[in-house]
Amino acid sequence: MGKASKSLKSAAKAAPGRHTPALRAIKGGKAAAAKSAAANSAAKPAVKPIPLKPAPAVADDAPVIALNLPQAKLTPAMAAYFKKCQDRLGFVPNVLVAYAFDMAKLETFVAMYNDLMLGDSGLSKLEREMIAVAVSSQNRCYYCLTAHGAAVRQYSGSPLLGDQIVMNYRVARLNKRQRAMLDFAVKLTASPWSVEEGDRERLRRGGFSDRDIWDISAIAGFFNMSNRVASATDMRPNTAYHGQAR
Amino acid sequence: MGKASKSLKSAAKAAPGRHTPALRAIKGGKAAAAKSAAANSAAKPAVKPIPLKPAPAVADDAPVIALNLPQAKLTPAMAAYFKKCQDRLGFVPNVLVAYAFDMAKLETFVAMYNDLMLGDSGLSKLEREMIAVAVSSQNRCYYCLTAHGAAVRQYSGSPLLGDQIVMNYRVARLNKRQRAMLDFAVKLTASPWSVEEGDRERLRRGGFSDRDIWDISAIAGFFNMSNRVASATDMRPNTAYHGQAR
Amino acid sequence: MGKASKSLKSAAKAAPGRHTPALRAIKGGKAAAAKSAAANSAAKPAVKPIPLKPAPAVADDAPVIALNLPQAKLTPAMAAYFKKCQDRLGFVPNVLVAYAFDMAKLETFVAMYNDLMLGDSGLSKLEREMIAVAVSSQNRCYYCLTAHGAAVRQYSGSPLLGDQIVMNYRVARLNKRQRAMLDFAVKLTASPWSVEEGDRERLRRGGFSDRDIWDISAIAGFFNMSNRVASATDMRPNTAYHGQAR
Amino acid sequence: MGKASKSLKSAAKAAPGRHTPALRAIKGGKAAAAKSAAANSAAKPAVKPIPLKPAPAVADDAPVIALNLPQAKLTPAMAAYFKKCQDRLGFVPNVLVAYAFDMAKLETFVAMYNDLMLGDSGLSKLEREMIAVAVSSQNRCYYCLTAHGAAVRQYSGSPLLGDQIVMNYRVARLNKRQRAMLDFAVKLTASPWSVEEGDRERLRRGGFSDRDIWDISAIAGFFNMSNRVASATDMRPNTAYHGQAR
Amino acid sequence: MGKASKSLKSAAKAAPGRHTPALRAIKGGKAAAAKSAAANSAAKPAVKPIPLKPAPAVADDAPVIALNLPQAKLTPAMAAYFKKCQDRLGFVPNVLVAYAFDMAKLETFVAMYNDLMLGDSGLSKLEREMIAVAVSSQNRCYYCLTAHGAAVRQYSGSPLLGDQIVMNYRVARLNKRQRAMLDFAVKLTASPWSVEEGDRERLRRGGFSDRDIWDISAIAGFFNMSNRVASATDMRPNTAYHGQAR
Amino acid sequence: MGKASKSLKSAAKAAPGRHTPALRAIKGGKAAAAKSAAANSAAKPAVKPIPLKPAPAVADDAPVIALNLPQAKLTPAMAAYFKKCQDRLGFVPNVLVAYAFDMAKLETFVAMYNDLMLGDSGLSKLEREMIAVAVSSQNRCYYCLTAHGAAVRQYSGSPLLGDQIVMNYRVARLNKRQRAMLDFAVKLTASPWSVEEGDRERLRRGGFSDRDIWDISAIAGFFNMSNRVASATDMRPNTAYHGQAR
Repeated sequence: MGKASKSLKSAAKAAPGRHTPALRAIKGGKAAAAKSAAANSAAKPAVKPIPLKPAPAVADDAPVIALNLPQAKLTPAMAAYFKKCQDRLGFVPNVLVAYAFDMAKLETFVAMYNDLMLGDSGLSKLEREMIAVAVSSQNRCYYCLTAHGAAVRQYSGSPLLGDQIVMNYRVARLNKRQRAMLDFAVKLTASPWSVEEGDRERLRRGGFSDRDIWDISAIAGFFNMSNRVASATDMRPNTAYHGQAR
Repeated sequence: MGKASKSLKSAAKAAPGRHTPALRAIKGGKAAAAKSAAANSAAKPAVKPIPLKPAPAVADDAPVIALNLPQAKLTPAMAAYFKKCQDRLGFVPNVLVAYAFDMAKLETFVAMYNDLMLGDSGLSKLEREMIAVAVSSQNRCYYCLTAHGAAVRQYSGSPLLGDQIVMNYRVARLNKRQRAMLDFAVKLTASPWSVEEGDRERLRRGGFSDRDIWDISAIAGFFNMSNRVASATDMRPNTAYHGQAR
Repeated sequence: MGKASKSLKSAAKAAPGRHTPALRAIKGGKAAAAKSAAANSAAKPAVKPIPLKPAPAVADDAPVIALNLPQAKLTPAMAAYFKKCQDRLGFVPNVLVAYAFDMAKLETFVAMYNDLMLGDSGLSKLEREMIAVAVSSQNRCYYCLTAHGAAVRQYSGSPLLGDQIVMNYRVARLNKRQRAMLDFAVKLTASPWSVEEGDRERLRRGGFSDRDIWDISAIAGFFNMSNRVASATDMRPNTAYHGQAR
Repeated sequence: MGKASKSLKSAAKAAPGRHTPALRAIKGGKAAAAKSAAANSAAKPAVKPIPLKPAPAVADDAPVIALNLPQAKLTPAMAAYFKKCQDRLGFVPNVLVAYAFDMAKLETFVAMYNDLMLGDSGLSKLEREMIAVAVSSQNRCYYCLTAHGAAVRQYSGSPLLGDQIVMNYRVARLNKRQRAMLDFAVKLTASPWSVEEGDRERLRRGGFSDRDIWDISAIAGFFNMSNRVASATDMRPNTAYHGQAR
Repeated sequence: MGKASKSLKSAAKAAPGRHTPALRAIKGGKAAAAKSAAANSAAKPAVKPIPLKPAPAVADDAPVIALNLPQAKLTPAMAAYFKKCQDRLGFVPNVLVAYAFDMAKLETFVAMYNDLMLGDSGLSKLEREMIAVAVSSQNRCYYCLTAHGAAVRQYSGSPLLGDQIVMNYRVARLNKRQRAMLDFAVKLTASPWSVEEGDRERLRRGGFSDRDIWDISAIAGFFNMSNRVASATDMRPNTAYHGQAR
Repeated sequence: MGKASKSLKSAAKAAPGRHTPALRAIKGGKAAAAKSAAANSAAKPAVKPIPLKPAPAVADDAPVIALNLPQAKLTPAMAAYFKKCQDRLGFVPNVLVAYAFDMAKLETFVAMYNDLMLGDSGLSKLEREMIAVAVSSQNRCYYCLTAHGAAVRQYSGSPLLGDQIVMNYRVARLNKRQRAMLDFAVKLTASPWSVEEGDRERLRRGGFSDRDIWDISAIAGFFNMSNRVASATDMRPNTAYHGQAR
C-alpha cells in the first residue's frame, strides 16, 4: 500500500483530543503539537495558545459551494476522518464537504493537504500557515483567508499576526527568514514566470535548505490551487473560523 | 484502502502498449483511448493521430530541477509506474523524477494528476489538456507548456492547435463550448478574486454541468499549482516532448 | 467662524456616552445613533449591536508611525476631542496621535473625516464604512482595514460581513445598491482614469442621487488618501481594534 | 477657534495682488512668494517667472462636474475667498465651484489644500506642485494635470518641466533629491502596500527630514484623493489653465 | 523604382510654404491641406487654424538622444527633405536627426511615416494624430506626446483637445466614431493579445471600412514602435513643440 | 534613388538558392549566411543547421487576415521579391500577402524589415530573431511567435531554444550578453516609460556599443509594431512554419 493511503488511515485512527483548528492538528497529536510549539518559538517566544471558543451550536446549513454536487457515500477512511474533525474541531471543514461528492477527489486532496501541512518539514506548522495566508491574500481568497487566518492566530497565539498576514504580510514584524519565505511565496504567486535562481539564493541565504525551498514552493503552489477551486465554486468557510483564537 | 491508492495500483498493473505521450494514457488502456477519441471527435471530427517519434536514445542527464534533492527508493507501486512510463513513453516524465525524493509526495501528486486528467469527467482528455496549456500559457510555465503542449498536439492530431494554445488561446478556432471553458480557466488563473456567479452561468449556457464546472476549476487549479512548483524549482521538461506529434 | 471649526467645537462639547468604535460616533450622540440604526436597517434588518470588549488596560506604547515627529501641544478643541475619544472608546485612535505633531493638520483631518463619515448623507454610516474597507482592501492598508473593519463589524452586527469586505467584497451577500456602490468605489480606486458616465449611470440605476454619488466618490477618495498616509508612515492601528465586535 | 478656520479667515483678508495661478499664492502674499523663489532656486537657479496671460474674458459656462448639485450660499469666509481668487487669478478654480454645493465640505477642502500646498514645509511650493503633477499623471487625472501642470510651469518658469512631469516625470532633468521625492510619491500612488522602511530611508539619504517625508506623503495622498473626486465627477478645469505660463 | 522612394523624392521637391508643424504637412502642399481641413471638419466644424509661433531663434544644441551616434552624410533626397523641414517648420524634427546616423534607416522611417500619416486614408490627418497621441499617452512617451500633441492642437485648432488626449483621451468630447477609434488603438496598445473580431466589429459599426481598420492598426502599431525607440534612446523633442498652437 | 528602394531592387535580383526560412535570408546570399553563422557561433558553437522540411504541397487558402482588402497589382520589385520567396521558402510569408493590398505600404514594410533583420549590425541574425520572439512572447502574438520562433530554431539549430524563447525567455540558458539584450527588449516592451540610463548602462556593461543599443531598440520597437498589426488583423502564419526546423 502506498504511503498516501497509509497516512489517511493512521490519521483516521488518531485519538481525538480537545478542539483544535480545522484540519490543522488532526494528524499531529501531542508530539506534533510540542514540536510545533518549539518551532514557533523561534518566531515568537513563549506564546500562550489562545483557547478556542466552541463552534456555534447551530449547523451551518447554507450551501457550501455554488455548484449542485450531491455528497457521495463516505469511504470508511473518510467517514472516520470526518468524525475525527467533528470531535476535535466541532465541525467538518467546508472544503472537505465540498470535495465529498467524489471519494477519489476527497482522498487525494486530504492526502496532499496532510502531507504538506502536517507532514515532516523544516518549516514549522505556523510557517506553513503563514505561507497559506500570504498566498491567499495575494489571491484575495475568502475561504482560505478565513480558515488559515484562524490557524495563524491559533499557532502563533497572536490575533494581530493573523490579521496582518491577511491584510498585507509586509506590515508584520517578521524575522529575516520568515520575511524571505513570504516574499518568495508571494512573488511565486503573483508572477511565477519571474522566479529564478536569484530568488532561490535569497532563501538559501535566509537559512533554508533545498528541501525547505521545495516545501515553500509546494505549499505556495497548493494554495494557488485551493484558492482557485474556492473562488471558482464560491466556497464558504465554516462560520466558526471567524471567531477562533481572537 | 482508499480509492487514491487503488488507482495507483491498478495503473501500475495496466498492460503496456505502444508509446503514448507522458502520463497521458498511462491509466487508460484501450477502452479509455477509444472513449477519448469519441470525446475528442466533438471538438475535431475524424482526426488521424500523429504517430509519435521514438524518444531520443540518449538519456536526458542534466539535472531535472535546480534543487539538490536525492531520489528516494521507489515504493513498489511507484517503481511499477515508472517502469510503465518507460515502456510506453520511452522515458519517465521529469515531473515524476522531481517528486521522487519523497514517496508520499510523489504518490499524492500522481494520484491527483491521474484522477483529474485521466479519471471520469464530462470533459474529454483533449479538453483537459487544453485547460492545462491555456493556464500554463498565462503563467508562462516552460515545463507544463512543453509537456502538455505535446499532449494537445497528440490528442487533437493538430500541431497547429497545440502551438496556438501555447501562444495565445484566443487565436484558436474553438467552438463556443471550448472557448467558454478556456475563458473561465484563464480568468480564474489571472484574477481568481473576480470569478463570480456570472462566470459560472456562462459555462452553464455553454453546455457544462455543475460537475463539469468543478472539473474545469480543479484542473485549472491543479496547473496553477504545478506551474508554480515547476517555476520555483526551474523544472526542465524531457527533451523528447519538443518534437512529439509535430 | 466657518462651519468646519464649528463642527470641531460642537464635537468636543458632546456628552460622553458608552464606548463606541474609534472616531465613529464621536460626533453623533444619541440622535445620530438612532438615525444610523435606521439607515443600517435597510441593509440588514434588526441587527443586535455586538457589545464592545473594553480596550486592553495596558497602553499601546510602540511608536504609532515610523517617523520621528514629536507631538505638539493640543489646541483646546483637540484636547477636548482626544478626551472624548478616551472616554468613549477607551483610547485615542492612532491616526489622531499621528497627526498631532501639527494642530492645523490634525484639525483639518478631523474636520474632513467627521464631515464625510458622520455628517449628513444619503449613505448610512455602515455604507460609508463599507466603502472605507473596500477601498482599503484594494490598497491593502493595514491601519484602515483594522480600524474600519472593526467599524463594519460594529455597525452591521456581523463579524462575517466585516471579514468579507476586508478580504474580498465580492463574496459578501450585498443587495444591488450596495454592490453597485462598492464596485464604483473599487474601480475608482484601482483605475480612476477609466471612470466615466456609464459608471455614474449604474449608480443612478441603483437608486443613488447625484449627491450620493458625490459622497461615495469623496469617501473613496478620502480613504485613497488615508491609505497612502498610513502606508507611507507605517501607521499602526490600536490593538483594541483587532478584537472589537467579534 | 481652531487653526484651520483661522487660516481661512486670514487668507480671506490677504491683500489682493497681481494675477497668480489658481489657489497657489492666495494664502501667501509677498513674503511667501519670496520664500518660494528662494526654495525653487535650489532646483532651477535664477528663473524668470513667466508673465501670466489674463484669463479669457468669456466665462466658462459649461457645467463644472457631471453631477447636478446646485451651489449653496457662500459663507462670508468663502465669499471673500472666491472674491480673492477672482481678483488675483481672474477666475474661481472649478474645483472650488464643484465643492460649493456644501459649505462644510468646501471649507475643509480649502483648509486642507492651503495647509498642504501653501503652509510651512521643508518642501518648496514648486516641489509640492511637482508631487501633485506626478501623482496626477500616474492617475491620468485631467483636472489636476491641467491646473497643477500650469502651477509647475509658473513656479519653475519652465514650460518644458511642466510638460515633462505631466507626461512622464522620469524624463525631467531632476536633481537627486527631487527624483527621490517623485519616485516615492509615484510608488506610493501605484502600489501603496509596497512602501516600506527602505523607501523612507532613500528619502532620508536624499536629504529629507522625517517631517518632509510626512509632507511628501500627505501631498501625494491628497492628490490621490482629489484625482478620484475629479475623475468620479468628470470635473473640468477652467480653460484659462491650458495657456498659462507657456 | 518602388513607390516608397518615389514618395521621398516628390516630398523633397514640394514647394515650401508657411511654417507648419513638424513632419505633418511636408508631403502635402496646398491640396492636401485643403483636404485635411475638409476631413477635420467632420470632427470639429469651422475651426480656425491657430497661427504658429516662429520657432525659437536659438538652436536646440543638447544631444538629441542618449546614444553616441555621429550623423552620416545625408543622401540628396534626405538633404532636400531636411531643408524643406527647416524652411517650413523652422527646425528639423529631432526624430529625423536621431535616425540620421544611417541613411537606410532614416529613409525607411521617413517613407513609412509619410505613408501612414500623410498618405491616402479614410482617416483625416487629425484623426491619425489623435491615434498617435492616445497611443503615446498609454506608453507615456515624452517625445511623441510633445511632437504629436502639438499636431493635434494645430490640426484641430483646439489646445484643449490636444491636452486632453495627452492626459486621458477618455475626457475628450469625441463623437462615437473617434471614441471607438481611440478605444481600439489604446486596447491594441495595452493588451494586443486581447483584440478580437468583436473589436473590429465595433469599429465597423462606428462607420469604419476594413481599410480604415488597417490604417488605425498600422498607425497605432507605428507609434508603439516609435514610442519605444524614443524611450529606449531618451529622445528629446525640439523645444519649439511645447509652445506650438497654444 | 534612396537606399531603401535600392535594397529592395538588389534583394529582388539575388540568385535563388535552397529553401530558407521566410524573409530571413532573402536579402543575404552566401556571404551573409557565412557571417551569420560566425556571429551565431558565439552563442552556440558548431551548430549543424536543421534541414528544412519542404512546405506542404497544398496551398494555405484560408484568408490571411480578417480584413477584406483585395491584393493590388505587385510592382515589378515586389513581384520579383515574392517570386524569390516562393523559390527559396516554398511560400510567400503571409505578412507580405497581408500588406500587398497597397504597394507603398508593402515596400516600406519590406525595406524596414530587411534593413533591421538582415542589414549590417553588431547583432547576429540569431540575436535579432531572439529579440523578435521575446518581444512577441510578451505580446502573445501568434503570427510573429510562429514565424520567428521557426527562425530561432533554424538559426540556432536548437528547437529547444526556439520553444524556450516562445514560452519564457528567462528559462533559456543564455550568456550574459544575450540575457541583458532580452531583458532590455522585454522591459522596453512591457513598460517603455520606465527605461532609463541605467538600462542602457547595463547593455554597455554587457558589451554592447551604442549602435547595438539602437539596433536592439529598433528591432524591439519594430516587433511591437508588427505584433499589433498582426493581432489587430488576426493575421495567420503560413502553416509551414509550425514544422520548420523541429
